[in-house]
Amino acid sequence: MDHFFNVKTLDWVMGNLTRFSCMDKETVSILDASSRVLSEDITASVDIPGFRRSTMDGYAVSSKSTFGATEANPSWLEIAGEIRMGKTPDFSLGPGSAAGISTGGMLPEGADSVVMVEHTETVDESSIEIYKSVAPLQNVIDSSEDFARGEVVLKKGLVLRPPEIGLAAALGHPELIVYKKPVVGIISTGDEIVDITETPNPGEIRDINSYALAGFVRQAESIPRLYGIIKDDPEALFMAYKKAFEECDMVIISGGSSVGARDYTIDVINRIENSEILAHGISISPGKPTIFAKSGNKPLWGLPGQVVSAMVVFKVVVLPFLNRLKGKSNVFESKIKISAKLSRNVASAQGRRDFVRIRLEKKDDQLLAEPVLGKSGLIKTMVLADGLLEIGENVEGIEKGSIVDIILL
Amino acid sequence: MDHFFNVKTLDWVMGNLTRFSCMDKETVSILDASSRVLSEDITASVDIPGFRRSTMDGYAVSSKSTFGATEANPSWLEIAGEIRMGKTPDFSLGPGSAAGISTGGMLPEGADSVVMVEHTETVDESSIEIYKSVAPLQNVIDSSEDFARGEVVLKKGLVLRPPEIGLAAALGHPELIVYKKPVVGIISTGDEIVDITETPNPGEIRDINSYALAGFVRQAESIPRLYGIIKDDPEALFMAYKKAFEECDMVIISGGSSVGARDYTIDVINRIENSEILAHGISISPGKPTIFAKSGNKPLWGLPGQVVSAMVVFKVVVLPFLNRLKGKSNVFESKIKISAKLSRNVASAQGRRDFVRIRLEKKDDQLLAEPVLGKSGLIKTMVLADGLLEIGENVEGIEKGSIVDIILL
Repeated sequence: MDHFFNVKTLDWVMGNLTRFSCMDKETVSILDASSRVLSEDITASVDIPGFRRSTMDGYAVSSKSTFGATEANPSWLEIAGEIRMGKTPDFSLGPGSAAGISTGGMLPEGADSVVMVEHTETVDESSIEIYKSVAPLQNVIDSSEDFARGEVVLKKGLVLRPPEIGLAAALGHPELIVYKKPVVGIISTGDEIVDITETPNPGEIRDINSYALAGFVRQAESIPRLYGIIKDDPEALFMAYKKAFEECDMVIISGGSSVGARDYTIDVINRIENSEILAHGISISPGKPTIFAKSGNKPLWGLPGQVVSAMVVFKVVVLPFLNRLKGKSNVFESKIKISAKLSRNVASAQGRRDFVRIRLEKKDDQLLAEPVLGKSGLIKTMVLADGLLEIGENVEGIEKGSIVDIILL
Repeated sequence: MDHFFNVKTLDWVMGNLTRFSCMDKETVSILDASSRVLSEDITASVDIPGFRRSTMDGYAVSSKSTFGATEANPSWLEIAGEIRMGKTPDFSLGPGSAAGISTGGMLPEGADSVVMVEHTETVDESSIEIYKSVAPLQNVIDSSEDFARGEVVLKKGLVLRPPEIGLAAALGHPELIVYKKPVVGIISTGDEIVDITETPNPGEIRDINSYALAGFVRQAESIPRLYGIIKDDPEALFMAYKKAFEECDMVIISGGSSVGARDYTIDVINRIENSEILAHGISISPGKPTIFAKSGNKPLWGLPGQVVSAMVVFKVVVLPFLNRLKGKSNVFESKIKISAKLSRNVASAQGRRDFVRIRLEKKDDQLLAEPVLGKSGLIKTMVLADGLLEIGENVEGIEKGSIVDIILL
């Protein structure tokens, strides 16, 4: 028996990602740009550092003046001057001369390298000895060595980490153009759900999903907007969904708990202007009773009411679409999977993709992936979990001791 | 030749973590609590779910009524009623009777299990046949099975992820008590540093460190406050540092570029009331010229001006102290290291801890850790890096092909 009319694989669902386009752009202060997604390429407008810069404390020289210098046979160099930080030296260096320089200082004309202070000795006020030769550009960053003018240094779609923020600062961008944060409307439905400020009667339960889903939206640097708890009433549900649809960039409804009420969600989404139901059921576990639809550029979701299912579906199905709206070029963040050794055999049904809750434990310097036991209706199993193990449709299970990738929660 | 007077190992520095205490507490809305650190244990005030709850659509029964039921020899049960979502059933179930129930519904008195609808057949309006027996509590979450009243369910020091937010919602906490976000004062110093809105002259460079460090502070869910660029002038530096010290929970100064100016930072920190210099030099690379001090409960830092060093020192030295102030019970986040296969030999000097910039590359389904080549003064090397590889003091290097842990940037 199957209540679902249009069950799709997870891969099929992900095939729809590019049917959605990215958010509009906005300008933010560089101080607010951390973790935002860049929406325009940044090109170096100047060379960086823009001058020949010392990476050591020591003496700027022409490398030729040092060739052959050893402890036994040092080169003798005349001091031509001292280089002040932040200033263009007002002298140039000829063969046989040197000038004191600090890390970050600008080399004078005629100098192509820096001898570390540790390899020199002061002879008198106007001369030093050098015990080690240097090669051209040794202990120096050349004018365009970090970035050359005209080079695309940061690509749109990139999440701005601190190093990228630093680079934008180096290029003189007090403001950055990023994609707007998507606003995600969240609705809970079900006659048994009560507000978190209420004391539930027997048979009732507080609204967990609105807050857990809002947490995921926040974690994804997006803006959750709650539309409250709607009882299993098709008209009230439609009004709430329509309002959320008009005000948000994506809408998630979770629940619709009784067998009959589950159809309300699909009816409500069907009534949204220009909506198109893309999947009514996804072959994943937990989370099969998921509805995926679109209207214009807005992904519309009906998530299972069961708390664990709702969270897993958000993480593995909804999040890539949110990342797509956010403009991230890598919607899957596949790099941040953790490798660990599976602590016991895990069975899986063929024909569906399973997501097993995993607790990571360090044991003898090895990271163990410990499946979290317990019924899938228990929120405890998510609180205990550090991540999820994905098991493919054509895999019957994974053996104890296998090295597996874990998607962090 | 060594300019540093009190060089300490990284482990010694970390041994000072517990000399700092956590921030004060504040109350925030559950909607703003994502990624914050809980500052008080949360105890379950009620059982969760608080009643016997079905995890399936089907029929609530007394399991005894189903014993021995098979396809060939089904049990025949009488329908005692229908259970409405969110309501306490107003009837109880005796042997030989059943009641229709949806996922999340409350079992009536006398029922201890649920037969999945797939294993039943309707005989007529008042009776069904059951083809499979169920065990006690099968397809049911018992009243205190998720969490039992009185149990400590969330411990202080924990970072609130979406599942924890969901659990707090289940327990009826519209507000949560968390540690305040630390305010981190940031100062750049150096005669060669100009504001990011200025066009640098030859020999000058824009202020990268203030913004990169502010990015790291933001990434750590804390509040950066910039105190601008101070030229190499001891009195101006002291005034700025003192102001930052008075207004912030931690102060970071980076730079002090010319050889003489470097001593200004230590002098300035020495002049701060009750300050104690704990390390003048840390045996790590990059980042040796780091000053670590404390005054009262405030960690005070002098970071190298070199951009890569400043970022690495923030990540591996400063961040654990920021996490300590934030109240995190796990200041090191060791779980989120990524395992990867080293793509080439990496040499390392004995007696210091090295942090090698690493780019992660997926190749033939294996994650490769590719050391980022290039001088350590190049910000490019940080932009290209995904993380850092830590090499211990007593290790001469790591061989190509070794499996290594990477600290994500």
